[in-house]
Amino acid sequence: MDWSLSIDKAIPRPLRVIFRGAGQVFFCCNAVTGLIFLIALYVGGITAGFAATVGVVSSTVAAYLLGFPEDDIDAGLYGFNGTLVGPCLFLFLEHTPQLWLYVVLASVLSTVVLAALMRILQPYNIPASTSPFVLTCWMFMVAVYAFDGFARGPVLPPPGIPSTIAETTAASTDAWFNAFTQDAAIAWCTAISKGIGEVMFADSVIVGALFLTGIAITSLRGAFMALSGAIVGVVVPVLLGADKTLIEMGLYAFNPVLTMMAVGWVFLKPTTGSALLALLAGILTIICQAGLANFLAPIGLPTLTFPFVLVMWMFLFAAGKSKYWGNAS
Amino acid sequence: MDWSLSIDKAIPRPLRVIFRGAGQVFFCCNAVTGLIFLIALYVGGITAGFAATVGVVSSTVAAYLLGFPEDDIDAGLYGFNGTLVGPCLFLFLEHTPQLWLYVVLASVLSTVVLAALMRILQPYNIPASTSPFVLTCWMFMVAVYAFDGFARGPVLPPPGIPSTIAETTAASTDAWFNAFTQDAAIAWCTAISKGIGEVMFADSVIVGALFLTGIAITSLRGAFMALSGAIVGVVVPVLLGADKTLIEMGLYAFNPVLTMMAVGWVFLKPTTGSALLALLAGILTIICQAGLANFLAPIGLPTLTFPFVLVMWMFLFAAGKSKYWGNAS
Amino acid sequence: MDWSLSIDKAIPRPLRVIFRGAGQVFFCCNAVTGLIFLIALYVGGITAGFAATVGVVSSTVAAYLLGFPEDDIDAGLYGFNGTLVGPCLFLFLEHTPQLWLYVVLASVLSTVVLAALMRILQPYNIPASTSPFVLTCWMFMVAVYAFDGFARGPVLPPPGIPSTIAETTAASTDAWFNAFTQDAAIAWCTAISKGIGEVMFADSVIVGALFLTGIAITSLRGAFMALSGAIVGVVVPVLLGADKTLIEMGLYAFNPVLTMMAVGWVFLKPTTGSALLALLAGILTIICQAGLANFLAPIGLPTLTFPFVLVMWMFLFAAGKSKYWGNAS
Repeated sequence: MDWSLSIDKAIPRPLRVIFRGAGQVFFCCNAVTGLIFLIALYVGGITAGFAATVGVVSSTVAAYLLGFPEDDIDAGLYGFNGTLVGPCLFLFLEHTPQLWLYVVLASVLSTVVLAALMRILQPYNIPASTSPFVLTCWMFMVAVYAFDGFARGPVLPPPGIPSTIAETTAASTDAWFNAFTQDAAIAWCTAISKGIGEVMFADSVIVGALFLTGIAITSLRGAFMALSGAIVGVVVPVLLGADKTLIEMGLYAFNPVLTMMAVGWVFLKPTTGSALLALLAGILTIICQAGLANFLAPIGLPTLTFPFVLVMWMFLFAAGKSKYWGNAS
Repeated sequence: MDWSLSIDKAIPRPLRVIFRGAGQVFFCCNAVTGLIFLIALYVGGITAGFAATVGVVSSTVAAYLLGFPEDDIDAGLYGFNGTLVGPCLFLFLEHTPQLWLYVVLASVLSTVVLAALMRILQPYNIPASTSPFVLTCWMFMVAVYAFDGFARGPVLPPPGIPSTIAETTAASTDAWFNAFTQDAAIAWCTAISKGIGEVMFADSVIVGALFLTGIAITSLRGAFMALSGAIVGVVVPVLLGADKTLIEMGLYAFNPVLTMMAVGWVFLKPTTGSALLALLAGILTIICQAGLANFLAPIGLPTLTFPFVLVMWMFLFAAGKSKYWGNAS
Repeated sequence: MDWSLSIDKAIPRPLRVIFRGAGQVFFCCNAVTGLIFLIALYVGGITAGFAATVGVVSSTVAAYLLGFPEDDIDAGLYGFNGTLVGPCLFLFLEHTPQLWLYVVLASVLSTVVLAALMRILQPYNIPASTSPFVLTCWMFMVAVYAFDGFARGPVLPPPGIPSTIAETTAASTDAWFNAFTQDAAIAWCTAISKGIGEVMFADSVIVGALFLTGIAITSLRGAFMALSGAIVGVVVPVLLGADKTLIEMGLYAFNPVLTMMAVGWVFLKPTTGSALLALLAGILTIICQAGLANFLAPIGLPTLTFPFVLVMWMFLFAAGKSKYWGNAS
């Protein structure tokens, strides 16, 4: 919205670039939105907030030092991968002092990977999105097993064969998911809000609501798509009979949130047609996530936001062949 | 052949596009050939035939609705991946009513993936071939473990470490494979014909023979390459000492069939040189298939036609660097 | 150096191309250097030397027969992948007579894969480097489990879950690594020299020293980068607490050796800035190798030089976005 963009321009440049970096996690090139995201992260947990701050600063400074295009840096494009790297490594690895060094190194690498992927995707005019964050964190998380100085945290599951992991956790969704009671309404709202929060690894209703507010400040259509993605990410897994614990934590929702924002708001023309495409993309993201999760189970890695990246890439590449779809920019 | 192309043109457009979609599984843009393929599938089994029909119709209709290029759709290029998706999911997953919905969704996705890959490969002038079918089916097959509403069929092996799966099944090929008796001749012909049938998951001699007839109607060189591929796909694994059961079912042959047709007939100039290249490509396809099969064993996925896709891509990309090889079109 | 290039030009063409093919393993288009490498390989072991010779000859001859660009062949670019394929298959697979046929087939395939990757990477002006060797050897090594005619050698670990493989071998580095005694100095020099030797699978101090001499004949900066890479490949894993046996054998060092040569000498402008980038790339290569090793553990494959290839690609693609870095050629 106009007033927020005026504030965005009034903020001193170094701070503005950092805030925008946080904002770009949800495609918002808006320092006010980014500031709200950062505050929300600190609300969710001091460590996560500080890790995100270290990540966004490291990756942005690295981009300046390595001489990548200033326009991209100013738009916060070299910040959002670092923003995600920080809380991700702190969620999945053991908290040790040297982990901070590891976060800085991973954030710097995410900047190099981003520049590389932007160069690769340049002829197609397709964004790299959060893929540098995913690839960097996967690499650092698997590498950890080989080094004494680091250990996995309790959240990261031990590697194992998918049949034993996936088939035992897949359980019928409870009755309360089908009844129209007040408890059911609360359960639904919790899952949907956490789904938005889990984009930045926050298992918290308040953080999710703050994220949604931040997005709404930049664009109402963006917020609508985020909310729709979260709803799809709860309803569809329930219908398919996915694991209830995962649904309740919003772990099926954060990928469709990003997919529907990307397809329905950011990268295609904002029409009714692209909204329907976004819905289709959101549903496919859930199947893609279930597939990738089982695919990665033998090495004990989480999918992170890669299902979103894959489905978004598919739809944006396909857009180049369609006479109906148009690129937004 | 000329008479079949006249019939092809006489068939009403919607039917022609659907039949050509089936025909393109073996690179035949010919409705007569496609019709024979569909009939052969129904001969092999009503369910498989109907699943293929649902697949080819879903993926072609989706291509129209999503606005992909009409020329490509008319040539049946948006149909053959759906044709394969249908029987594939019905072979590997449990037969439930909701599986039909799953087939429709997978066929629609294969159309989006095809458009995306065509866009990616456009600068290189390389075909996507059956890769959308493979990627889509892999995703849907692994996703199934996470959902209560679906279960794997008895054919899909449980995931496991390759050493236990592969090394125990690898067994010496029997004496009858080396003896010149009538029994041996029958065994060879069975394996070769089934090899052609297995391209569309048909474990049947008659279906394989019908497929070969259909190809011959479009091109004799195409039929010769298909037959050579099937022979290579039996002889080479026997020489290398591969698992006898797999060889007898034609499961080492369907990939070289497609590779030799692609390299020796469709995409390179039809010369003696490209026929020799096709032979080399066919042999490498078998090693590639054995490698990929062991690679995928920990997640319990079949290779499908990906060995063919990989080797074909390698040879077509390499063709761009050679002064001898030329592209056919 | 000038005198070696004069000798290079005086050598008869067929021999020169073969020697250069060996030289290109360390980016040296210099027949004298290549000859020293080959001699060093024979010093390390007759079989390894002969396997490398068979590989380099097969892949170069295949490139001529398949009609790939003569300039590239003359520079030895179609030889170094074969040079690596030979000793690699002889290290990891059981020594049988038919293994020689397998080496020839794999070397021919590495030539086709190289041409394909050169075509794919052409628009970006990025080298394929040793990726054809890695991809071909991975394929042939996994395929082996499916065939009776071949068996894995004692070096290739059985496939298994990374937790059991990696976490048990990760052990604290001994006291002698931290003490300034004569023993420690010898241990360090051994590890560093072996690190250079392991690029061509030679677990030998003399071979490593000969390789370094050969590189120094072509370029002192190249030799400096190789030595720095080997030092990084011993110091950084010690600091991170990696497995001592692997460090002592130089198995963490051969990838950074290649990365630092590529980034700091061959492909970017030879400045102080690119030397610092090379150092960063070398450190990241070690984390990438640890990650990839655990990633590949379930299928029982070694990383070979793929960590180097991945990090080099990242830095060279990223170089295209930077205003400071420049391509050397």
